[in-house]
Amino acid sequence: MNNQIKVAIVGYGNLGRGVELSVLKNPDMSLVAVFSRRDPKSVTTINTPVYSLDNILEFKEKIDVLILCGGSKDDLPIQGPKYAEHFNVVDSYDNHAEIPAYFASVDKSCQKNKTIGMISIGWDPGMFSINRIYGEALLPDGDTYTFWGKGLSQGHSDAIRRVEGVKNGVQYTIPSTEAIDKVRSGSRPSLTTKQKHTRECFIVLKDGADSKKIENEIKTMPNYFEPYDTTVNFISQDEFDKNHNTMPHGGFVIRSGKSSDGVNQVIEYALKLDSNPEFTASVLVAYARATFRMSKKGEFGAKTVFDVAPVLLSPKSSQDLIKELL
Amino acid sequence: MNNQIKVAIVGYGNLGRGVELSVLKNPDMSLVAVFSRRDPKSVTTINTPVYSLDNILEFKEKIDVLILCGGSKDDLPIQGPKYAEHFNVVDSYDNHAEIPAYFASVDKSCQKNKTIGMISIGWDPGMFSINRIYGEALLPDGDTYTFWGKGLSQGHSDAIRRVEGVKNGVQYTIPSTEAIDKVRSGSRPSLTTKQKHTRECFIVLKDGADSKKIENEIKTMPNYFEPYDTTVNFISQDEFDKNHNTMPHGGFVIRSGKSSDGVNQVIEYALKLDSNPEFTASVLVAYARATFRMSKKGEFGAKTVFDVAPVLLSPKSSQDLIKELL
Repeated sequence: MNNQIKVAIVGYGNLGRGVELSVLKNPDMSLVAVFSRRDPKSVTTINTPVYSLDNILEFKEKIDVLILCGGSKDDLPIQGPKYAEHFNVVDSYDNHAEIPAYFASVDKSCQKNKTIGMISIGWDPGMFSINRIYGEALLPDGDTYTFWGKGLSQGHSDAIRRVEGVKNGVQYTIPSTEAIDKVRSGSRPSLTTKQKHTRECFIVLKDGADSKKIENEIKTMPNYFEPYDTTVNFISQDEFDKNHNTMPHGGFVIRSGKSSDGVNQVIEYALKLDSNPEFTASVLVAYARATFRMSKKGEFGAKTVFDVAPVLLSPKSSQDLIKELL
Repeated sequence: MNNQIKVAIVGYGNLGRGVELSVLKNPDMSLVAVFSRRDPKSVTTINTPVYSLDNILEFKEKIDVLILCGGSKDDLPIQGPKYAEHFNVVDSYDNHAEIPAYFASVDKSCQKNKTIGMISIGWDPGMFSINRIYGEALLPDGDTYTFWGKGLSQGHSDAIRRVEGVKNGVQYTIPSTEAIDKVRSGSRPSLTTKQKHTRECFIVLKDGADSKKIENEIKTMPNYFEPYDTTVNFISQDEFDKNHNTMPHGGFVIRSGKSSDGVNQVIEYALKLDSNPEFTASVLVAYARATFRMSKKGEFGAKTVFDVAPVLLSPKSSQDLIKELL
């Protein structure tokens, strides 16, 4: 259909595949291409044609929004500014400390050809950030608490896999029920990230590995595990393959505040995700719709979730939204 | 301070008083006047001057945004269109079925002098509506569930107070834990409003009243109580005064959807409010800030929460928001 929003993906890993799945659920959008640095013949998508990333500029007129699905460490710092010069782009840049610098670098590229660079889209940063801003704006006399999990942490899983004798391993971050209950009560406790979370590891040992030694090495690992209440479980490869092959995640943003003396108001936003990359992809796709519309209205420059009015995310008309959802 | 946003209130009941309290928590705003239909001398505010509503047009140049705190049944259908002709207005119009007509009527007034009419602000409609739109946009293959309570229902409390022999009474709407758990599980059940809620009444009897007869009359009241699992408790006036003199409310908006086959994603937004009118007032005040800013940018016409980008609600700069909350 000619009036569909034409989307393309750069980078086809878990996130790129999630974007392909999500576009299939949105009939007002179509996915015209996947671009990869790999040999296109070696990339198997669901049903989207794959092209070499080297040829992407040939598609300038065929794409409304480009969704960048690379990583925040190595890919996006280069790809964001590079492609924002020629396309409206949406990405999930999530290196919190570096976001202001990344925003500036994408914004500079966007100014050249009046494109939009919608950065740091997903759930944190993203939906969680929106809930932090709403919470603070509605209850200025209050505190905001972010909890992560239960969810698989890629960085911590990598760290345990580097321990000698570990064949396979995953790490789940688990929010502390006790801490959540305290926050929900409206008592506004002071809590460190460490007090809010525990860590649980599932490990498959190499033949002949010393489990006691490995458990000790993990639990005393500085920064990663030492400051936390950490549990280490040893399991078989079979159990690992059966129960630890998905990427669940989620968490909570809670704002607890007073509207007047002794009057507590608590706002809670929670996500329970079977698949972290598929949910992040769903958010990217909704914001690709908003990006297209903002671009059509003549807006340009780097943007974040904070700049996007909710109406722009829905395929429905304002009138229908007022009737059905307000 | 001259650069504060100058706000005024029309109507000083629970909601108007909540707005006065909320403005005190927002240093970038000041409350310049309360307008009342009553004799100004008979209205006692915290520290805001009170004027007769008849003189409101004399304040045209002194007010940036007027917050209408009247009721949806009799006050707003007249006041909304009337004052939107001369002022930027914000209101909490909450008669869901009539919102499209009300929107049109306010919009027509706004076009005359290019004002903004920010309608149906609060938590439902309002924050709940925003979460319904985000949920649907992020997970198009899904279902949305709204639960209300635990909270005091004004309409049902009025209904029990009309029963002969009842001296005093309140009714709380309670969301069914069983129904919420089903929805949270991702099973996407079909649930009616009745299956999602139970009703609990607390009643003080008049001398000599027949409790059995009253309990039966309440439980069999068509529409109000008959379709629901209803509990009736009889208590003393002392207990009533001690435990049932506040207006708590809250509820949940849950979106349960699939991003692909067998992959469930659940989004939950929950409010636990000690005071329904004070929270509604806090939302009105944050949207008064957004209204002022949108008006400064030259926007006009009727608007809803759907049209307001999150950045407009916060007193902080975009740069600070990106650094602190993204």
